[in-house]
Amino acid sequence: MNAAVRAVVRTALALGLRAFGIRRAYEGLVRGEISELGARDVGGIIQRGGTILQTARFPGFAEPEAQQEALRQLEAKGVDALVAIGGDGTMRGAAALHQLGLAVIGIPASIDNDVHGTDISIGADTALNTIVAAIDKLRDTASSHQRAFIVETMGRRCGHLALMSGIVSGAEMIMIPEREAAPEDVADAVRGAHARGKTHAIIVVSEGAQLGANALKERLDGMSTGFDFRVTILGHVQRGGSPGAWDRLLAARLGVAAVERLHRGESGVMVGLRGREIAATELAEVASRQRPADLEYYRMARMLAT
Amino acid sequence: MNAAVRAVVRTALALGLRAFGIRRAYEGLVRGEISELGARDVGGIIQRGGTILQTARFPGFAEPEAQQEALRQLEAKGVDALVAIGGDGTMRGAAALHQLGLAVIGIPASIDNDVHGTDISIGADTALNTIVAAIDKLRDTASSHQRAFIVETMGRRCGHLALMSGIVSGAEMIMIPEREAAPEDVADAVRGAHARGKTHAIIVVSEGAQLGANALKERLDGMSTGFDFRVTILGHVQRGGSPGAWDRLLAARLGVAAVERLHRGESGVMVGLRGREIAATELAEVASRQRPADLEYYRMARMLAT
Amino acid sequence: MNAAVRAVVRTALALGLRAFGIRRAYEGLVRGEISELGARDVGGIIQRGGTILQTARFPGFAEPEAQQEALRQLEAKGVDALVAIGGDGTMRGAAALHQLGLAVIGIPASIDNDVHGTDISIGADTALNTIVAAIDKLRDTASSHQRAFIVETMGRRCGHLALMSGIVSGAEMIMIPEREAAPEDVADAVRGAHARGKTHAIIVVSEGAQLGANALKERLDGMSTGFDFRVTILGHVQRGGSPGAWDRLLAARLGVAAVERLHRGESGVMVGLRGREIAATELAEVASRQRPADLEYYRMARMLAT
Amino acid sequence: MNAAVRAVVRTALALGLRAFGIRRAYEGLVRGEISELGARDVGGIIQRGGTILQTARFPGFAEPEAQQEALRQLEAKGVDALVAIGGDGTMRGAAALHQLGLAVIGIPASIDNDVHGTDISIGADTALNTIVAAIDKLRDTASSHQRAFIVETMGRRCGHLALMSGIVSGAEMIMIPEREAAPEDVADAVRGAHARGKTHAIIVVSEGAQLGANALKERLDGMSTGFDFRVTILGHVQRGGSPGAWDRLLAARLGVAAVERLHRGESGVMVGLRGREIAATELAEVASRQRPADLEYYRMARMLAT
Repeated sequence: MNAAVRAVVRTALALGLRAFGIRRAYEGLVRGEISELGARDVGGIIQRGGTILQTARFPGFAEPEAQQEALRQLEAKGVDALVAIGGDGTMRGAAALHQLGLAVIGIPASIDNDVHGTDISIGADTALNTIVAAIDKLRDTASSHQRAFIVETMGRRCGHLALMSGIVSGAEMIMIPEREAAPEDVADAVRGAHARGKTHAIIVVSEGAQLGANALKERLDGMSTGFDFRVTILGHVQRGGSPGAWDRLLAARLGVAAVERLHRGESGVMVGLRGREIAATELAEVASRQRPADLEYYRMARMLAT
Repeated sequence: MNAAVRAVVRTALALGLRAFGIRRAYEGLVRGEISELGARDVGGIIQRGGTILQTARFPGFAEPEAQQEALRQLEAKGVDALVAIGGDGTMRGAAALHQLGLAVIGIPASIDNDVHGTDISIGADTALNTIVAAIDKLRDTASSHQRAFIVETMGRRCGHLALMSGIVSGAEMIMIPEREAAPEDVADAVRGAHARGKTHAIIVVSEGAQLGANALKERLDGMSTGFDFRVTILGHVQRGGSPGAWDRLLAARLGVAAVERLHRGESGVMVGLRGREIAATELAEVASRQRPADLEYYRMARMLAT
Repeated sequence: MNAAVRAVVRTALALGLRAFGIRRAYEGLVRGEISELGARDVGGIIQRGGTILQTARFPGFAEPEAQQEALRQLEAKGVDALVAIGGDGTMRGAAALHQLGLAVIGIPASIDNDVHGTDISIGADTALNTIVAAIDKLRDTASSHQRAFIVETMGRRCGHLALMSGIVSGAEMIMIPEREAAPEDVADAVRGAHARGKTHAIIVVSEGAQLGANALKERLDGMSTGFDFRVTILGHVQRGGSPGAWDRLLAARLGVAAVERLHRGESGVMVGLRGREIAATELAEVASRQRPADLEYYRMARMLAT
Repeated sequence: MNAAVRAVVRTALALGLRAFGIRRAYEGLVRGEISELGARDVGGIIQRGGTILQTARFPGFAEPEAQQEALRQLEAKGVDALVAIGGDGTMRGAAALHQLGLAVIGIPASIDNDVHGTDISIGADTALNTIVAAIDKLRDTASSHQRAFIVETMGRRCGHLALMSGIVSGAEMIMIPEREAAPEDVADAVRGAHARGKTHAIIVVSEGAQLGANALKERLDGMSTGFDFRVTILGHVQRGGSPGAWDRLLAARLGVAAVERLHRGESGVMVGLRGREIAATELAEVASRQRPADLEYYRMARMLAT
């Protein structure tokens, strides 16, 4: 996200505007944690994981009182437009503030890549590469042990990370919320791999799949598959790390676009990527829907894992 | 490229076809270095840099005799269709074989990303991340030394790698073949950075720019800029390394598409990425043109480097 | 381990000896999976994780019949000396073969670093860096969320990896088999971190600690600490990856030493590192003891985590 | 170095002392850039490359006036003991301050690993791993092209980095200041590799070798070797990056030891690593000598590169 913050600040300055940063998202906004940012304040941050502005979950922002307080805080600082960077919770808050008359544009950032209105959100590519690097290390230990590895990825409602990492790592089986598979199907897939001469197998499980990695292992241990199962749960490791080139470029493009559009008087939309182009979607629409994983890839994954 | 080879082989097998691999590109083809590949032969290769089939430059393939010999070798092995993976030289050879009646489909692979007919070629994303990781390390040594780093990237005719790595690394100046800048412009840019309080500066130079990194340093050392210049030349380091998730996915998609299209009777095209979709371009057109870097990004880079 | 295999083979050839590789450890040895290795067979392998010879667990090698069969297989191939690379199970087998009259020298390889007779075993440094890189990514997400991360590392009987990764990552608490701590102690430590103003906390747990990461989380969730706990289990990811420089150098030195000593007529020992020097320990002693984690570091870790 | 700063500060606080940081080394010291550091000020810094205190070269510190001014600045802040972290220049300054009566202990930090009195200096292991990772990528492009890669590493007077990276990367030839080799020797080595069937070769050249990488390439291009030479110059990339586990542990141990010894009344020494133990060497001795690369490894490198 730091690359987006940097792009927003520097584009604003280039347009002759002033820029402010809000610490700890909507919670900080309501508490007035707003301070001006200059060009140097966003120097040397693009390669850092996380965000210099910190994040926070603040369910209380659904309350009208909190939203009104946010407007008061912005007004007090002389801020008349907001760029909101985050996932669907952030976009719901942004939609509400737009309804109340504030000039707002959203930028999608979600490693789960579950935000509607964009092909891809900031953070998803870096998280994907972290998962793939971990699975590559698992493959190195491939041996005569006949071990199968169950890898749990993030993705509570959207199987994007599991599906994509599974394809590009040659996983035997991918379990995602959008397309359930029973433990028996997994057992069949690894038995098939065994029969084709594979000495190891990889199963990628989305956090939001019916069974988590630990539960799946318990079920599979009771079946006869020829494999010994081991679990890897990456957890928040997926949220960190220096962002890759693609994420930084996406963040820079969306940051520039958000500020240029606000400056031209646009509001109430989220800027996202569609193909190679930046496209806007109404915040109200973004807030009411969710992006599923692309199931076309599911079929491809099965074919290539032969 | 290994991910593309794997996808081609496994898609062919899934369609009931047989698959063969040609070692050392056109040179190996002319010498008959062709052997059948099964599903297991392409197992465990997606995470490896380079290609299991090896590469070779073979200017002699421009000769009609060499092309005729290639057809004879393929016929002798009972091969009736070719997937050619590579850069524009590879596409010129593929176009020639298509002219002679062979069923051929090309897949673009070029870390310089200079192949016409696709937004991006296999290898470019991984190379970009290698460059960006190196520049990140340079930034760590930012200090009161007032050092400026000149980083030379690959890209003989196309400034893609230099431009993209420069944007996402916050470079003060980017030198590419498509948009020349004089040493005096670089001196001005770093002087400006100095005046704005920066204690270091980064200049990214494409291999194909008018002045290479060493020559540029010599010129800049003679000007008064407030900085001490140091050179980094990554060279072929950019060609190696385990491919990132994006490159593997692109390779898988193009590999599947190439075989499916050949199977449907299509020939004489290169499959590439346009936005999110796979699109085909005539090999004759691909072979006669070249993809330049996207200069829209050049303007963005200058603005964000403030 | 590949770096050790390469050093053994090339040192043997330099001394005018022939070299053979045994696939799948003692299981392969008993089955006669022995083949000659030349200088080129071990080219291009040092940077690869895992081992080209594959590994296998073979409890049956404790049986005298299996050991006799091993000697027969070696004799049949004309092999008169063995370099055994592995953990304490491997050293027990090596000790037995030495008792039966075979010339044997052991090389310690164990990511848990639990082999007696060496300061460090091959693989431990690379595994440690993998863990540390993962924890670094967790720290990036430090935020106002007040999250504490429980990271489970390998180390069934030896807390080396947990202790070392905990120190160099600034963990608030480290749980190892050699020094048990109750969940209440962990709760106290993170409460202390909270009181000192930390917005996140890291707890590293060795696989062999009394409570695993999942069980510890359950216990901590029930206490009032001010933190929300999340679990990361790296599992076999720690076993893979390209070996670091230190591991490669250690492996090369031990491989050279093992062959030179066998050539000088030495047998029945394991070569290991003591300080900067290579030192030998009787295999019988190695097989009967186990290296614990160095508890002096435990105290240092607590002091630095303030 | 950040891990050392953190250890120094936290050990001091644990002993009931106050801790101060000096920005920009001796230059900052003379200018009074000294400020108190608390436990939180050194939180979250161990994984960062570079140093939070910044570095500076300040040849003027050889002047007695500058040294006297340094003492005055320290006295003004109530500072009565100094931990000096750096290379041999830093140790010379530390020796001078000790002569003038200040309590001083040095900690060696030098990626070149050229500081006398310690087996290894902080930073050398991380730099080595950066070089090795780069050479690994070069090896991936091994192909029928018959390319040889010349890699220039840091090390103006000490060939440590070139020698160690050369061994663990299987380099055909290593050029270091301590043991000169002529271009003809390099040509012979790569010709030998060619004759043994190698399709690529790697030559590692220390910055301080008689010929730099560019000059060596020019000489080799004129000889007939069967290889096409390409140059990689990593430059300051070697100085950055997140420190590895070994470097962090070394820095922590040396930081703790320095403060504990100052607290016990010791002064005028540098703490270093000898084998596994921390040992002290007189600063006067450290300042007058230099650590060469270990030539025993040179012989090993040649044997293993067969």
